[in-house]
Amino acid sequence: MEYQHIHTALAEDGILTVTLNRPDRLNAFTLRMKDELVHAFGEASKDNRVRAVVVTGAGRVFCAGMEMEPEDGGNLFGYDRADSEEPPLEVIRDSGGEVSLAIFECRKPVIAAINGAAVGVGITMTLPMDFRVVAEGAKIGFVFSQRGITPEACSTWFLPRLVGMQQAFEWVYSGDIFLAEEGLNAGLFRSVHPRDEVLEAAYGLARKLIAKSSPVSVALAKQMLWRNPNFDHPMQAHVVESRLIYRSSEYWDGKDGFKAFLEKRDPVFDTDLNSVPTQFDFWPEPPLQ
Amino acid sequence: MEYQHIHTALAEDGILTVTLNRPDRLNAFTLRMKDELVHAFGEASKDNRVRAVVVTGAGRVFCAGMEMEPEDGGNLFGYDRADSEEPPLEVIRDSGGEVSLAIFECRKPVIAAINGAAVGVGITMTLPMDFRVVAEGAKIGFVFSQRGITPEACSTWFLPRLVGMQQAFEWVYSGDIFLAEEGLNAGLFRSVHPRDEVLEAAYGLARKLIAKSSPVSVALAKQMLWRNPNFDHPMQAHVVESRLIYRSSEYWDGKDGFKAFLEKRDPVFDTDLNSVPTQFDFWPEPPLQ
Amino acid sequence: MEYQHIHTALAEDGILTVTLNRPDRLNAFTLRMKDELVHAFGEASKDNRVRAVVVTGAGRVFCAGMEMEPEDGGNLFGYDRADSEEPPLEVIRDSGGEVSLAIFECRKPVIAAINGAAVGVGITMTLPMDFRVVAEGAKIGFVFSQRGITPEACSTWFLPRLVGMQQAFEWVYSGDIFLAEEGLNAGLFRSVHPRDEVLEAAYGLARKLIAKSSPVSVALAKQMLWRNPNFDHPMQAHVVESRLIYRSSEYWDGKDGFKAFLEKRDPVFDTDLNSVPTQFDFWPEPPLQ
Repeated sequence: MEYQHIHTALAEDGILTVTLNRPDRLNAFTLRMKDELVHAFGEASKDNRVRAVVVTGAGRVFCAGMEMEPEDGGNLFGYDRADSEEPPLEVIRDSGGEVSLAIFECRKPVIAAINGAAVGVGITMTLPMDFRVVAEGAKIGFVFSQRGITPEACSTWFLPRLVGMQQAFEWVYSGDIFLAEEGLNAGLFRSVHPRDEVLEAAYGLARKLIAKSSPVSVALAKQMLWRNPNFDHPMQAHVVESRLIYRSSEYWDGKDGFKAFLEKRDPVFDTDLNSVPTQFDFWPEPPLQ
Repeated sequence: MEYQHIHTALAEDGILTVTLNRPDRLNAFTLRMKDELVHAFGEASKDNRVRAVVVTGAGRVFCAGMEMEPEDGGNLFGYDRADSEEPPLEVIRDSGGEVSLAIFECRKPVIAAINGAAVGVGITMTLPMDFRVVAEGAKIGFVFSQRGITPEACSTWFLPRLVGMQQAFEWVYSGDIFLAEEGLNAGLFRSVHPRDEVLEAAYGLARKLIAKSSPVSVALAKQMLWRNPNFDHPMQAHVVESRLIYRSSEYWDGKDGFKAFLEKRDPVFDTDLNSVPTQFDFWPEPPLQ
Repeated sequence: MEYQHIHTALAEDGILTVTLNRPDRLNAFTLRMKDELVHAFGEASKDNRVRAVVVTGAGRVFCAGMEMEPEDGGNLFGYDRADSEEPPLEVIRDSGGEVSLAIFECRKPVIAAINGAAVGVGITMTLPMDFRVVAEGAKIGFVFSQRGITPEACSTWFLPRLVGMQQAFEWVYSGDIFLAEEGLNAGLFRSVHPRDEVLEAAYGLARKLIAKSSPVSVALAKQMLWRNPNFDHPMQAHVVESRLIYRSSEYWDGKDGFKAFLEKRDPVFDTDLNSVPTQFDFWPEPPLQ
């Protein structure tokens, strides 16, 4: 797939940079950008060279939200509005949500390097990313209520997990713009940086995450931390953990991990992540793919 | 219904003030107050003039807890204690919980303006409210363990969402009184104010929430933010969001919202909220109404 | 059961101290220690003299993680590694998880007094404890990814509840050591103290929790606060609360609690906790015991 609305670059240290790349349109989100992002996160999952993903925006803005101009956007759902019948669900899927689910399923850590304003889907698409670092004074807004619509991109699942109910209500009900610093205080952002240091801060975090860790451990931990807390009882997490610690130590990177620790040397983590299943029977299949 | 234990007043700006109104009894909670609150929140949901609800107490206290004097209270459950048989569940419903569920189901933002002490059901009834602003130095207490009973008003569902496990355990196990400032640090309260500025702070917040937002967007976002995080997987939130963003943009306030944005004018949000369903098939019906 | 790897002592004030007691091995976790901890928490549940449990480590370290030396450890799962067949799940249960579940089921408040370094299972075993107080500068690490394995001891269920997603990802992905103070800021720890004051801080907290509270109220509140938030809807918490507030006020410690309050005297809380059920039909049975 040849990317037109994003740009990707893989560095030697295993960090893939994904750039929202419509700077003349403030990187406004299009259906094409959606397809490209879904593709890019799918590829990042499968490519063993990719250890972490950093997402940023070209120019001075991260993403100004949904493209509203008719030639590229203005159609949230990707179906032909001329149809007189209400389209079936398979057709009217929220496009921001498709991106969020691709990020959620990606097996590599994902870091948002929010280099400037992030509004509407521009901020909601970052919620399923594992971390958000942001530029000082960047304008942020969950503006949906001011357009008469409802939140999207799975943000109603992710936002309360990140900032709690009271803060989520205030931002979402009002639809107001707020500054990066308010988001830092609320726990939305991991850290705030001068604008021209945001990308380097994201790379520094990425390097810390991957320096000594097993790719298999990280990929499985990502799934476990997102999915296990939703169980009714810790016993169910215990079932998952028992199986995965057994497999990871007997079959995957843990085989050398303990040995190296006892021998006081660096471990060799060379398990092919693609040999590790992505779905296990202890996690329910989602109702729609 | 003529209110005796509460008082309500609707201002021109769409803010309904609900006052717990037994100041000679420190606004202690009665079964009559329960019935009146359930009624008032039901009416607020249906009345399109009401955009937000502020709940406060008459006098210097918010609510001192359950009325213990026999003439008005002392009966938590609303059944005749003379019965020798254990009453069926339909009869022994916790009265605080009935209020909490009415607030949870209310389609308008609800703000607690805690003007003074809030103890027992006086604080637990505020947990399902979207926001809590509080007077400096107000005394707060989840005192149930010191009476030998268990927490109520759905507080065991709401409190951990608001303040986390470690803090919830400390307050609930000990049953001790603590000050508003401790609650602010823990995330229980949104903000602390001098006592005579609490009500105005609540009104200011209410005005911010409703200034530019669609009533339909706010009502649906309230349900989505409370209910969607409880799904096992973000895919299920995606199903809800896809349907609601489609309907809100094609049928409800979003119809003018996007148009107005492109035309650089204020939108007209005139959808009758009563025409928007309150229950959708993607959310499970609760087991008891 | 005669303890070899832990030590227990019950003080007159009802506080049971459980000490991880292999100081020459930095209190490294063994299968024997697992069995002893599971036994000790089961006994603490049943012994009406025990009002709270404090867990600490002998010497200058809390727990350095899993014992790796062959004579005592190196076997995470407790099955015979010589077996050529993959063992069934009943056999390969994560041993840290067995301890976490015993703590989760314990009916008394549990406080971790982390007197020094807590690494691997040394920190994950404290997550199901209700509170964690910690020594200044203590080294903490969720080091699993650096050994090529996945997190255990039900930590993927507990950790996001305590510190949120963003922080959980950073610690778990990197596997790095961090200091107690970073954990305090993130909400992992309740408070940080000079090393030689940690145990006394834990005792002070324990005394606060039990001073005026009903043992029945505390035991039930612990279950309610861990389990009810996992319901899809607050209505389900209302069902639980209605039944338990009814029973606690009509049959258990609440019988005297309200009476004493009206009579302005201290209540007598003398219900035998062992007469109160540990499982109710409104909570699902876990899938494995």
